[in-house]
Amino acid sequence: MLHFTPTTLVEYLEQVFPQIKGDFTVLELAERQLKVKLNVQEKHLRPGDTVSGPTMFSLADVSIYMVIMAMIGPEPLTVTTGCSMDFMRKPAGGRDIIASSTLLKLGRSLAVGDVLIHSDGISEPVARATMTYAIPQKAKT
Amino acid sequence: MLHFTPTTLVEYLEQVFPQIKGDFTVLELAERQLKVKLNVQEKHLRPGDTVSGPTMFSLADVSIYMVIMAMIGPEPLTVTTGCSMDFMRKPAGGRDIIASSTLLKLGRSLAVGDVLIHSDGISEPVARATMTYAIPQKAKT
Amino acid sequence: MLHFTPTTLVEYLEQVFPQIKGDFTVLELAERQLKVKLNVQEKHLRPGDTVSGPTMFSLADVSIYMVIMAMIGPEPLTVTTGCSMDFMRKPAGGRDIIASSTLLKLGRSLAVGDVLIHSDGISEPVARATMTYAIPQKAKT
Amino acid sequence: MLHFTPTTLVEYLEQVFPQIKGDFTVLELAERQLKVKLNVQEKHLRPGDTVSGPTMFSLADVSIYMVIMAMIGPEPLTVTTGCSMDFMRKPAGGRDIIASSTLLKLGRSLAVGDVLIHSDGISEPVARATMTYAIPQKAKT
Repeated sequence: MLHFTPTTLVEYLEQVFPQIKGDFTVLELAERQLKVKLNVQEKHLRPGDTVSGPTMFSLADVSIYMVIMAMIGPEPLTVTTGCSMDFMRKPAGGRDIIASSTLLKLGRSLAVGDVLIHSDGISEPVARATMTYAIPQKAKT
Repeated sequence: MLHFTPTTLVEYLEQVFPQIKGDFTVLELAERQLKVKLNVQEKHLRPGDTVSGPTMFSLADVSIYMVIMAMIGPEPLTVTTGCSMDFMRKPAGGRDIIASSTLLKLGRSLAVGDVLIHSDGISEPVARATMTYAIPQKAKT
Repeated sequence: MLHFTPTTLVEYLEQVFPQIKGDFTVLELAERQLKVKLNVQEKHLRPGDTVSGPTMFSLADVSIYMVIMAMIGPEPLTVTTGCSMDFMRKPAGGRDIIASSTLLKLGRSLAVGDVLIHSDGISEPVARATMTYAIPQKAKT
Repeated sequence: MLHFTPTTLVEYLEQVFPQIKGDFTVLELAERQLKVKLNVQEKHLRPGDTVSGPTMFSLADVSIYMVIMAMIGPEPLTVTTGCSMDFMRKPAGGRDIIASSTLLKLGRSLAVGDVLIHSDGISEPVARATMTYAIPQKAKT
């Protein structure tokens, strides 16, 4: 049973991190699965209208954070402990980017999730990421 | 069009790396996709009959190497340049392990592939890996 | 021989990436070594006045990009291909963060660098990163 | 205060992992620092007498495991949770390889260490790694 709907999950995220208000839209949410769109804006771009690396990192980070919250309920002290990313192609100019995430492990104190990022409407992925999180111990009672 | 069948791919691998003869069986091979079984033996184990970390690294490494060879043909000088792995659960004792691999990028000089490793017959993954390879330039003609 | 001084290196960076103007100060530059300070501003923070993950990613990314440029000269098409980061401690509130970088490999087409990030004046590192870059082939002539 | 000397640390390692008996020599041990030599043998090699990837993984893995044990005392249930490696140069034929490790974080439940690997007597590193470990909770009392 999920603790959030797509709408309440974004509301919760924007309450915890007000700086990113309006940046993300949840497209699909299911058990251990999440699809999120980054609404690309001027601030996310690099020369050539390509989405910046830190923006893709942010999308991957937020995606796994949200799918963990959907699974365990609000636990704002959950923190990112690690990340590995591969940037494989230049994101297409003038398109939003979409992250498809899978939670591979949701343990007592550690969670691991995989993320594949595409430019909207283009099949070849632009980046992949694995994010790891530490879940505070009190979250487990 | 693939350059190898499951049988000729293992034969090629064992010719290039004679030390690992008999360790691997190709279960499925398709465009950018490969499923490989490690035939677990005494030398692959740690106390508790669990498969060792270096063995899982080796399985991931060999898997992406093989799927690249299947796509571009024999190019033995292709070398591993990077790896990220997450070890999520203890492999089950007394079971082989199986790697399901996807080649995410096959560029002119760089290839990137994702690997998910399971204990045979168990649905929760024991590890995940991303491997990157450098492909020698002459391979591209 | 380095292609830039600390001052001209930041000028070059801000010319290529105008969005980050004023964010970075080069503290030390030597053969394969660079120390960069991020001038922390409101936009870099998360609740609790802690520096955000994407900001630390950006600092690591920019650091290795700059040390490569210092070594090979302006080659704006150099792109990040991979990143691994570990977030080890919460950055201290109200302090800038400083990245100490070492270029471990500067090959014909690939570069690899290590980054250690500290809160200014605090000895325990807050994060570490390894960044990999692809250098366009024409850069080598 | 360290819980082991170089000699007792290797003895402890070989007791926990009998399969690697004779492979490793501790050259230097200090607070959060360890230098380990892999005594390269036939089983560690690939064609061209170069040390294999899984062997370098194993050296990095064992190195951080040992430095954690030296800091917290014998805690055999400490397990590797993650690894990122970059293979930067081919190890020189006919030489041992040496890993210089630094423990960057030793937290209540997570440890992170960096490893730089050289061929004995050669200054350019052949590989780098970051290893993360989970420390069982009872270890903290």
